[in-house]
Amino acid sequence: MHIGHRHTIHDHDGHLGWNRALQPVMRAVSGDTITFCCRDAGNGHYHHGSTAHDVLTADPHASNPLTGPLFVEGAAPGDALKVTIHEFAPSGFGWTAIIPGFGLLSDQFQSPKLKLWDYDTGISKPAVFNADASLPLKPFIGTIGVAPAEPGTHSVIPPRRVGGNMDIRDIAAGTVLYLPVEVEGALLSIGDTHAAQGDGEVCGTAIESAMDVSATVEVIKDAAPKTPYFTTPGPITRHLDGAGYDVTTGIGPDLMQASRDAVSAMIDFLARTRNLSAEDAYMLCSVCGDLKISEIVDAPNWVVSFYFPRIVFG
Amino acid sequence: MHIGHRHTIHDHDGHLGWNRALQPVMRAVSGDTITFCCRDAGNGHYHHGSTAHDVLTADPHASNPLTGPLFVEGAAPGDALKVTIHEFAPSGFGWTAIIPGFGLLSDQFQSPKLKLWDYDTGISKPAVFNADASLPLKPFIGTIGVAPAEPGTHSVIPPRRVGGNMDIRDIAAGTVLYLPVEVEGALLSIGDTHAAQGDGEVCGTAIESAMDVSATVEVIKDAAPKTPYFTTPGPITRHLDGAGYDVTTGIGPDLMQASRDAVSAMIDFLARTRNLSAEDAYMLCSVCGDLKISEIVDAPNWVVSFYFPRIVFG
Repeated sequence: MHIGHRHTIHDHDGHLGWNRALQPVMRAVSGDTITFCCRDAGNGHYHHGSTAHDVLTADPHASNPLTGPLFVEGAAPGDALKVTIHEFAPSGFGWTAIIPGFGLLSDQFQSPKLKLWDYDTGISKPAVFNADASLPLKPFIGTIGVAPAEPGTHSVIPPRRVGGNMDIRDIAAGTVLYLPVEVEGALLSIGDTHAAQGDGEVCGTAIESAMDVSATVEVIKDAAPKTPYFTTPGPITRHLDGAGYDVTTGIGPDLMQASRDAVSAMIDFLARTRNLSAEDAYMLCSVCGDLKISEIVDAPNWVVSFYFPRIVFG
Repeated sequence: MHIGHRHTIHDHDGHLGWNRALQPVMRAVSGDTITFCCRDAGNGHYHHGSTAHDVLTADPHASNPLTGPLFVEGAAPGDALKVTIHEFAPSGFGWTAIIPGFGLLSDQFQSPKLKLWDYDTGISKPAVFNADASLPLKPFIGTIGVAPAEPGTHSVIPPRRVGGNMDIRDIAAGTVLYLPVEVEGALLSIGDTHAAQGDGEVCGTAIESAMDVSATVEVIKDAAPKTPYFTTPGPITRHLDGAGYDVTTGIGPDLMQASRDAVSAMIDFLARTRNLSAEDAYMLCSVCGDLKISEIVDAPNWVVSFYFPRIVFG
């Protein structure tokens, strides 16, 4: 799982939480390409043989470790850090969990559940969920960000205007991301790599998986965006869209409730039509289904739709 | 713009608002295919030569006219009405407007603006926005629903659990939609046809355009979904995704504010990089950009992303 590059930050060179006072583990100049060796979001807690019980023994304070920070020479507050993502070397082992108290429907799913994945490290074959369902993969970075200006340690769980745990499934190979720099050297860190995830990450986890990822960093002076933005080099869902989608809707005046309704409706639909347990349907929704805001203007009711790719069932 | 079928409901056979007491304009049996001739959402108010001033003279009480209702024999409360959408015969003329007081950023865009479109009725050529920007088209039904059980007239503007003004851009040719029947005969109506729209319809209007649309209706006994759901027969964005996307983000604890932030960031980005006025960028976002919920679990901050298809600029 190693990508050969001149600069490599190993996964023991990392941290938990964001803090501008952290010592950089490496220094780079604009234009350097770095390989970040990333642990999974469970920090190595899960392995072959892990069960749902192990979800309860995971230390939340050890979760979502980051590799870095990388000090980029010349990066200063007000600049943009441009990060071009090249390639992923995935480990081939991953996990998806329902974690009590976490996830869009945590009130409805209160028991732990764990799904372990063994997948093709070449990403050419779908990952097997069960005898009926297999999932095309697209590795991406769940957490990528720079240190916030505000002193102190900040939890890694919520994303922020400086990026972080954004869990955007298209921060993938070829994507060019722009982050607003708030401290000298930017202090870039990367972690929480995923083999696949749908928009929303509705159960709270993706296919969580350790990976190496290589990226080029560049400083764009005085170009800090208010929030992160990125460009994808081409289509983003062609690995998934070939057989179309089943789509459920949530309709009402609150986007959060409409999102919950749309996902609940899809879980019911999959359980009924695909002979899945509600827990399996929820996890499958999280790793490949997409939450879209179909309509946000026809007051007082908005429409949130949940798109499930039919290719998963062959 | 006429599709030949045995059953045609002409656009003068219509209504404003939903009401279970409306007289059906046609009766059908399960399995019938019907052509609905739909007016545009402006009810014919706009024409070649219309200007932004005409946005102010449009009668909001005449807007979003529906063609129907169609009484489907045997449909009863608790059933699903299955609607298979076949083909569209678009008029070739359309409009997009910024309407004061309406739209996701109505506080920021308070002046009326109107864009008229002449487009290829065969949908094979992109519609020209300006010298730099052209838009691949995908006609769909903005408003499709059945009568709600509750007596009285209900505004056509907000969508409801029985469907209505859902503005879901994939209720297009080949899509199979399931609506929950609440009254005898279902009382299906269709209107608000669009030549193109992104997820969100952020400025409040799409490419609004009169069209004929043909659809087959079927009754599925005792199968009413809680909210509408549908299936697409294949890929949904391949006409748009070839050149990838520029993507902005909104990050925070409120999905509505995050949506506003993501769209504002895209308007700024397009204005700066594509030499567009903010108004033009806003309208262009509405007709082809997509609001996605990238992450809805990393409390307390969610990520809403706005995806703009780069193919629009060639």
